[in-house]
Amino acid sequence: MKLTADVLQDLSDGSVFLATGGGGDPYVSLLATQKVLQESGPADLISVNDLDDDAYVVAIGGVGAPTVSLELLPSVDDAAMALEAFEHHVGRRVDAVVSFEIGGGNSLIPIIAAARCGIPVIDGDGMGRALPEAQMMTYAIAGVAPTPAVGVDYAGNVVTFTADTTETYERHVRAMAQAMGGMITTVEHPMTGKQLKSSIVPSTLTFSLEIGRILRAHRGNAHRILAPLGAAFNRSIYGELCHLFTGKVVDCASAIVGGFDVGEAVIEPFEGGGPKLRLTIKNEFLVARVEGQVIASVPDLITVLDYETSMPINAERLRYGQRVTVVGVGCPAYYRSDVALGVVAPRCFGFDYPYVPIEHLKVHHQPPFEALLPG
Amino acid sequence: MKLTADVLQDLSDGSVFLATGGGGDPYVSLLATQKVLQESGPADLISVNDLDDDAYVVAIGGVGAPTVSLELLPSVDDAAMALEAFEHHVGRRVDAVVSFEIGGGNSLIPIIAAARCGIPVIDGDGMGRALPEAQMMTYAIAGVAPTPAVGVDYAGNVVTFTADTTETYERHVRAMAQAMGGMITTVEHPMTGKQLKSSIVPSTLTFSLEIGRILRAHRGNAHRILAPLGAAFNRSIYGELCHLFTGKVVDCASAIVGGFDVGEAVIEPFEGGGPKLRLTIKNEFLVARVEGQVIASVPDLITVLDYETSMPINAERLRYGQRVTVVGVGCPAYYRSDVALGVVAPRCFGFDYPYVPIEHLKVHHQPPFEALLPG
Repeated sequence: MKLTADVLQDLSDGSVFLATGGGGDPYVSLLATQKVLQESGPADLISVNDLDDDAYVVAIGGVGAPTVSLELLPSVDDAAMALEAFEHHVGRRVDAVVSFEIGGGNSLIPIIAAARCGIPVIDGDGMGRALPEAQMMTYAIAGVAPTPAVGVDYAGNVVTFTADTTETYERHVRAMAQAMGGMITTVEHPMTGKQLKSSIVPSTLTFSLEIGRILRAHRGNAHRILAPLGAAFNRSIYGELCHLFTGKVVDCASAIVGGFDVGEAVIEPFEGGGPKLRLTIKNEFLVARVEGQVIASVPDLITVLDYETSMPINAERLRYGQRVTVVGVGCPAYYRSDVALGVVAPRCFGFDYPYVPIEHLKVHHQPPFEALLPG
Repeated sequence: MKLTADVLQDLSDGSVFLATGGGGDPYVSLLATQKVLQESGPADLISVNDLDDDAYVVAIGGVGAPTVSLELLPSVDDAAMALEAFEHHVGRRVDAVVSFEIGGGNSLIPIIAAARCGIPVIDGDGMGRALPEAQMMTYAIAGVAPTPAVGVDYAGNVVTFTADTTETYERHVRAMAQAMGGMITTVEHPMTGKQLKSSIVPSTLTFSLEIGRILRAHRGNAHRILAPLGAAFNRSIYGELCHLFTGKVVDCASAIVGGFDVGEAVIEPFEGGGPKLRLTIKNEFLVARVEGQVIASVPDLITVLDYETSMPINAERLRYGQRVTVVGVGCPAYYRSDVALGVVAPRCFGFDYPYVPIEHLKVHHQPPFEALLPG
């Protein structure tokens, strides 16, 4: 399909929903993408199945602490500049681009690159959500080498990487993101069409569009949107949507640690008192706990919605006093495989407990969506 | 001249003297260089005047915290691997190599590269001493661009840089040195023979050899060596040698901060009591103070000699209880120019006072060398 400027708002909203708090604030990236599509014409969004097995594809996006991009604004030129630097570095043309992850910024950057460079963007991504580190991508898990890779900063400085493992690449690219202002655009994990077909989380851009359309059509009380959203997830590669908590943000702190946004948010019921929900953040919402009990954790999705409007709120936009509804979604089945859990289970983030699928964590008995409806 | 394995000990010892505490421990680099010269034959050491104006020259050496290289040992392959990665990156052959700085390790790394790659090493360097940051090199001060540049780590991972200023390059390369294990080999500041002729501190390798020969010939009490060393400096591009202090190290602390060795050493007279000397360290000995008064500072040279053997001691080898003689040497005149002081004066390191040439700082009246002699 052709991606035109008028569908980008839905795409962006749906991406923020799937990004579980991370993936970068969409605001400036959305304006930049709309501008590029108006100038360069629509971007070609193609299915991975339409890609030649020997096509040369790269993943492109922003690497750094999402809070940085609220002040160090992305430019319309970063994506194309990074792609051109990559092509110059490897001495060959790129046939198509794909996202690292679904995220407000990181779903849009490949679209800018595609439109500006006249190549297609693939419908899908390497996480099916957002996650903070490179080795957590399905491309890396499937054995795609992370390098040659290129990073470009706001000033046009360019760095290239050759690293023996994705963990090494992650350490190197993170150090450069910190040194280059906190957020850079990278082109990495070059692969063949065949490699991408066996490693992509498919169709997540079109699914983001669908989620965005539902958010727009049912704008209003977050509890009212759970039924139509739940139905959409039931038709998808994701698991079940469930309501985790509704209340107001009473504490929220984050700091940039090692190049990531690291923090915690506490949400208590509107009426005050009673058990609170604690969300632990490393770029994304990683774990939700009530009274010390885990009720959802990576790799399952935890998303915070504005209670009044149902719009998803990124971690870097979470503020004291916001009224929110927190939902969980089972991750795509791929991330529940042993090989994927080896890099994305809670222990990979320093939590001392194993992954338990969200549908087995219903310690906190959740009412059906209808029972949440006001009046 | 041909540099053979048998002169390397003198070259290394003299280099450590000029390196003012920094430049990297020479022990493993010396063994590596001896091995390479035995295997590949002698290295060609040529004067910068023998270089074609349009020759393509690069600076090569180690970047990081010198303490790291005491445990993460340099390999015989690092230098040639870095040079080959650079040539691959820029797509052309390098005609000659030159040192960043005079230092135990950093005087030897270009010799390894030259011998292994069959190209000459230039007699001279970019500092006439060692200094901690890239923008402090005469090449950078003269306007040579720092990039394209390449860094290689112990595992063969490669990173390339394109940076708009040397300060930016310094920030980027330092971040990578930290992320890549604390010490990397870089090839940087590519320049023409003509650019090198107008920016090099000339003949410092042959001068290191001369200093090394004096250290060997007069091995013993550090005070006895001051007269022959002083005579050698009087014939050189450096200023006057003077005795700053003799005593024992009673306190010495350093930590790796931001990728540099940062610390302080305190030296008190053998008899105890009386004013103490304080040396402030950032990879190199930057400032010497007695009772709060500066008696020597960057860019002049401050060197610590073992009192018993006269051998220079690098900052990372300084230990509690060592008996030492501390000497100062006026830096080459070039470093006293306004443009050079703009990047190497004490204020560039965070000290709140201007540079005063060492010969004007004789607050601490120093006896002539003869008066220091025992008995």
